[in-house]
Amino acid sequence: MRILRINTRTREYSFEDMGQYANLGGRALTSRLINTEVPANCHPLSAENKLVIAGGILAGSTAANSGRVSVGAKSPLTGGIKESNSGGLFAHKMPKLNLLAIVFEDKPEADAPFCTVFISGDKVEFKDASNIVGMDNYPAHDKLLDEYGDKLIAALVGPVGEKCGKTATIQFTDPYKRPARSAGRGGMGAVLGSKKVKAIVLDPEANEPYKPVDAEAFKTARKEWVGILKNHPVTSQGLPGFGTAVLVNVINEAGALPTKNFRYGQCDHAADISGEKIAELIEARGGKVKEGCHTGCVIQCSQQYNDKNGEYLTSGFEYETIWALGANSMIKDIDAIATMDRICDEKGMDTIEIGNSVAIAMEGGIIPWGDGQAAIDLLQKCGSEDHLGRIIANGVDFCGGAFGVDRLPTCKGQSLPAYDPRAVKGVGVTYATTPMGGDHTAGYGVCQNVLKVGGDVDGLGKEGNVETSKNLQIATASIDALGMCLFVAFAVLDAENGAQIMADLVTAQTGKPFSVDDFLALGVNCLKDELDFNKRAGFTKTDDQLPRFFSTEKLPPHNVVWDFSVEELQAAKVE
Amino acid sequence: MRILRINTRTREYSFEDMGQYANLGGRALTSRLINTEVPANCHPLSAENKLVIAGGILAGSTAANSGRVSVGAKSPLTGGIKESNSGGLFAHKMPKLNLLAIVFEDKPEADAPFCTVFISGDKVEFKDASNIVGMDNYPAHDKLLDEYGDKLIAALVGPVGEKCGKTATIQFTDPYKRPARSAGRGGMGAVLGSKKVKAIVLDPEANEPYKPVDAEAFKTARKEWVGILKNHPVTSQGLPGFGTAVLVNVINEAGALPTKNFRYGQCDHAADISGEKIAELIEARGGKVKEGCHTGCVIQCSQQYNDKNGEYLTSGFEYETIWALGANSMIKDIDAIATMDRICDEKGMDTIEIGNSVAIAMEGGIIPWGDGQAAIDLLQKCGSEDHLGRIIANGVDFCGGAFGVDRLPTCKGQSLPAYDPRAVKGVGVTYATTPMGGDHTAGYGVCQNVLKVGGDVDGLGKEGNVETSKNLQIATASIDALGMCLFVAFAVLDAENGAQIMADLVTAQTGKPFSVDDFLALGVNCLKDELDFNKRAGFTKTDDQLPRFFSTEKLPPHNVVWDFSVEELQAAKVE
Repeated sequence: MRILRINTRTREYSFEDMGQYANLGGRALTSRLINTEVPANCHPLSAENKLVIAGGILAGSTAANSGRVSVGAKSPLTGGIKESNSGGLFAHKMPKLNLLAIVFEDKPEADAPFCTVFISGDKVEFKDASNIVGMDNYPAHDKLLDEYGDKLIAALVGPVGEKCGKTATIQFTDPYKRPARSAGRGGMGAVLGSKKVKAIVLDPEANEPYKPVDAEAFKTARKEWVGILKNHPVTSQGLPGFGTAVLVNVINEAGALPTKNFRYGQCDHAADISGEKIAELIEARGGKVKEGCHTGCVIQCSQQYNDKNGEYLTSGFEYETIWALGANSMIKDIDAIATMDRICDEKGMDTIEIGNSVAIAMEGGIIPWGDGQAAIDLLQKCGSEDHLGRIIANGVDFCGGAFGVDRLPTCKGQSLPAYDPRAVKGVGVTYATTPMGGDHTAGYGVCQNVLKVGGDVDGLGKEGNVETSKNLQIATASIDALGMCLFVAFAVLDAENGAQIMADLVTAQTGKPFSVDDFLALGVNCLKDELDFNKRAGFTKTDDQLPRFFSTEKLPPHNVVWDFSVEELQAAKVE
Repeated sequence: MRILRINTRTREYSFEDMGQYANLGGRALTSRLINTEVPANCHPLSAENKLVIAGGILAGSTAANSGRVSVGAKSPLTGGIKESNSGGLFAHKMPKLNLLAIVFEDKPEADAPFCTVFISGDKVEFKDASNIVGMDNYPAHDKLLDEYGDKLIAALVGPVGEKCGKTATIQFTDPYKRPARSAGRGGMGAVLGSKKVKAIVLDPEANEPYKPVDAEAFKTARKEWVGILKNHPVTSQGLPGFGTAVLVNVINEAGALPTKNFRYGQCDHAADISGEKIAELIEARGGKVKEGCHTGCVIQCSQQYNDKNGEYLTSGFEYETIWALGANSMIKDIDAIATMDRICDEKGMDTIEIGNSVAIAMEGGIIPWGDGQAAIDLLQKCGSEDHLGRIIANGVDFCGGAFGVDRLPTCKGQSLPAYDPRAVKGVGVTYATTPMGGDHTAGYGVCQNVLKVGGDVDGLGKEGNVETSKNLQIATASIDALGMCLFVAFAVLDAENGAQIMADLVTAQTGKPFSVDDFLALGVNCLKDELDFNKRAGFTKTDDQLPRFFSTEKLPPHNVVWDFSVEELQAAKVE
């Protein structure tokens, strides 16, 4: 495997050995590289920042659910290090060019044109992107399909990324020829946009084989691995049955569904936006209740959501999106929410940050609470020259500044997702302490607090939640390093031999002995890199706090507050 | 002397003894109170923040140049503690109500109406402000003049303060019945605006005498004090002759006039915007070349600048304003710059932050470099519902986010003033290390580096500049605590007995022994309060850095870079 480095200013490039980054992959690789090579105090949109796209250690293998891609950089949103994780076909394709990672360096002049970077076996071409600049992601992706054919595998930024909005995503080609998978959080698209890269296309003809070194052992481990995923109720029934939106009713029932900008823990119209309701609509309209976000996925939690006329509207329509625009912004119309999910994919914006920003726009009186059409109109402005669009496309804290709102549910500049930290304290500890900023995927304490997977820890109380979050943060970083989908954790946490089998997969694929200890060390070292970078960027334990209103306002119906001290929270961080 | 506390939500108030704040004044008082009473991690626009307006220890006395007012709060711009300092009549009037400070606490609901707070001897009235809400400062002030008569002394926020823009000032009545004096930096107007206070009026009839305890000693010290100010060339000739704009040519000559967003140290059109040119225009148009910003000023560095028709246009037209909109934004038309100075006073915006923001709008392609009319149009949008106006009114870092610009000359969120830190390293050290964020008035190393007042330290080299800045930061905090105008420092630095005479003034006025050591301790302890607050708010030495481009780009004509390490800079901070 190699690393491809591309200087976006000089357009020089080099294919390099893994060198000091050998035995790393995914998030462990992006975070090591950023921490090693990017000045911690640089401006995220400056020439000194780098953007890394990396597959996991198992990328290119046939292990189930191993095709997630990691995007790393210093984040324009948080000012800290960031790994943003996505599905799509990119990670499994890179090894077919003998590539594990692509690093974008330096930066052209402000008035330089955007390019499409075309990568083949030993060559990088910088193609004129004027035919897709300023274009939304679906039509731009269609243009690329026309140009490169049906085997196209691309990554691209939308209009918001071109304009360096802090909510900007990088969108990846999914298995259904759509740019519907997002590296959503932290503004990674703004970094690529600042480097004037509109799209990256991997040579469709590239097909270098990446076979396991020990084919027999791999086959055995692979089978056991699929068995684990197929035998757990969450990964075999809950997620494929209703998608992630299955959580709307579950989290609402738990009294932890943040409603009206984190004022309440339950939402009156939860049923209208629930996974059950969505599945019903999908069935009635001829959509698809389940599909995978990448080849090799056996969970199939994604869906194809059609509009009232039975036409494709969106996919990757996640619980967090539905929550942010539904419960938190008080919008009841699920079609309006689905439309906004599509707009976010089109403009290239993180649905969590944008959904929260819509709530702040409502809080600030810019549009009325619950007004779906007004919210749609707002999102349509993003990525254009419209100044309200510029504000929204920069996220929650930015909207707070523009609209004079002080009720801002953010940590380290990133807005909190769909689980109120007062009622799901395990994930609250993660929000507060992960180097990523407010992020549920960095240590999903919802497992133990609500789903009772991998243990049973009360989410309303403090006990056990710091330890729970710490263990999850490590396991998550390890899973991200392998390129595995985070949802395998549901099954792994309840399977005694889960981690061992993942380790066996790595050993068999790479031919290098890899133990469960190695697996965990990967996560620990990844977190160390991230914490080190953030420390050098100026973060201290003072930044490991949630906004004060979580400590002063009781969350109904359980009337709980956030009551961890900063000192208590430090134990959730690896040393 | 008393402190008046006003709860802006419940409208309860109390007149209190100085208590734990006895023997403090001005900045020493505001910073102690904020550090003691405001949670360091609160949102600056939340109910937990407080806004303090305080006179100095010599406020209300007849000591020359002792009428400056200090405004303190947690800053919406920097996220740290802030003291913003202004001229005007407020500080000398408060003691006539036996008041040294007014503290605004808590916060009404978002939809509560704005009020005018009327303060008399023992009473606070909350008056309907609907007749001035949304109004620019001059017409609003005229309305107050109609209502309260010619003896009006008021403080008010403009439309930007009402909307909580991070550049919002508090404007104070000057001796000429204009709201032309600004507590400009750090967004203090946004804090008052968040508390729904449009204006504060001190009872015009209040006239409680505040006589020196030792009248004879005071008279002697006062005379010596005036002698010092009247005998120094800067305070007796330079400043009254050409106003602060005398510095345009001086700093340009020194190669330290930041030009085109801090790209060059000299500006081709410096002569067009110089103090000499302005004085010529003022004379020709029947303005006033010198006037004071408060009663008792013997320096008279302010001016009245008339337009082409001889009508009053603006006053308090400072060097930093002229630089920010002139050299740094490349605007050559001095009338356009004066018009923007007036607009900033009307909307209630800090001219330094706004001038720098105009440059960022130019950098981001929103308006062309040097286009004065386009810049005027931009500023006119501020304080309205216009979204571009919202962006500009939030300052440099915010504009950078909105426009995707990474060349942002800020420190701790506040933009740097009119002296390039690479060529005036004494003030650069202050920018980097003062708890205030990028601020020249916190330790004006220009004295030793360029003006050769109080010593001769090379501004292009490092040697001696850390110590110079540290000493100036302490002396400045002491001067601010007394309520003295900072410009007295020019004379004091070159007068052997300057500090002693200031101490004598305090002793004679208050009747309590006050030594030069006490004077310096006041400054040291003030800085300790500020550093302590900022530390608890999450600031570390990592925040004591200037943007990286100052270290990587050489500044012509001297081709110098900023080359202090963070460790070296720590010696500039009191321990």
